[in-house]
Amino acid sequence: MAGLVESAIHKSVLSLVECDEAQAQDVLRNEARINQLEIEIDDFTVGLLALYQPMAKDLRFLTAAIKINSDLERMGDLAVNIVERALSLMQQPPVKPLIDIPQMAKLVESMVRRSLDAFVKRDSELARAVLLSDDAVDDLRDAIYRELIGFMKRDPDTISRALDLMFVARNLERIADHATNIAEDVLFLVKGVDVRHHAEAQETIE
Amino acid sequence: MAGLVESAIHKSVLSLVECDEAQAQDVLRNEARINQLEIEIDDFTVGLLALYQPMAKDLRFLTAAIKINSDLERMGDLAVNIVERALSLMQQPPVKPLIDIPQMAKLVESMVRRSLDAFVKRDSELARAVLLSDDAVDDLRDAIYRELIGFMKRDPDTISRALDLMFVARNLERIADHATNIAEDVLFLVKGVDVRHHAEAQETIE
Repeated sequence: MAGLVESAIHKSVLSLVECDEAQAQDVLRNEARINQLEIEIDDFTVGLLALYQPMAKDLRFLTAAIKINSDLERMGDLAVNIVERALSLMQQPPVKPLIDIPQMAKLVESMVRRSLDAFVKRDSELARAVLLSDDAVDDLRDAIYRELIGFMKRDPDTISRALDLMFVARNLERIADHATNIAEDVLFLVKGVDVRHHAEAQETIE
Repeated sequence: MAGLVESAIHKSVLSLVECDEAQAQDVLRNEARINQLEIEIDDFTVGLLALYQPMAKDLRFLTAAIKINSDLERMGDLAVNIVERALSLMQQPPVKPLIDIPQMAKLVESMVRRSLDAFVKRDSELARAVLLSDDAVDDLRDAIYRELIGFMKRDPDTISRALDLMFVARNLERIADHATNIAEDVLFLVKGVDVRHHAEAQETIE
């Protein structure tokens, strides 16, 4: 499932940058499979909870898996959102050369990959590194917003297209938020430390 | 927790419509409490899973509670997002009289209330009614976007403020999505039917 979602994110940005409709259609085709996998994985993990009634670390692993499954499915939805904007934008003249959005996408994709690697390897250092990248993503989004608002003000004809690009940046930011959620779940899984809402080090559970 | 979140949503829109900074500050003050409750409820439900190792309906209830808890916390975040835009907008002249955003907010608040009532009463009819409201919310958002894009094109000076209002509509729509998630969880809980991704009636679990 992670492989399908990572590929959907990558192809969604590629379809935008290279005006490649085939990549876009690929993402749309794979969405149903991602949705179906979410249901299967959810049923399977809840079934394991019922059947084996696990304790401590195993229980934390299964509750992390249930949450990560939901994060992955939502990332898939966000990739579809990006594709919908890409399909609209590829019919129109470009507002500007796309340099910053691919740069933001590269960072976001790296966060997604590292958060999933951290889960598979139960690597808390890698999970922490993901959390640190989130501010850089927010900064890139702010820079993209500022530049696009400048275009909109100078030339109102660009407004609809600039809004589509802002929407793409917003969806990339939300994908990064889900990668952050996964990294937080990994830290809870490995260390038993809840880092949500900066509650870090306030509690330890074993 | 649901009470705090419902109140945060209501006050966030009120602060925008009535330019009422006190309501806005109230929402910001309550966010930490909502975040803390999310962690407590999560720990408590996972603890119950470990301690009582429930089966069938009780297991479904606890997994629903874990998901609904996470939806509520995110709704709280979205109310904070709305407040941040309200605080910025109240310093500036209004783009337009706010009629459609309060109307959208009223529908969204009603979805949130009904989804939570459906959970408490395990009322599948009420949960189904929430799912049916989601299209109306999307239509209202589209109408709001269209009108605001019109303002932006006619008068580029309104662009930043119109973007803030679009952002508010987008956050209301996302709150409605979380209410829809809750309603889907209630249907799964009560009927054992998974309605996510329109997989309705394909499977029943008991």
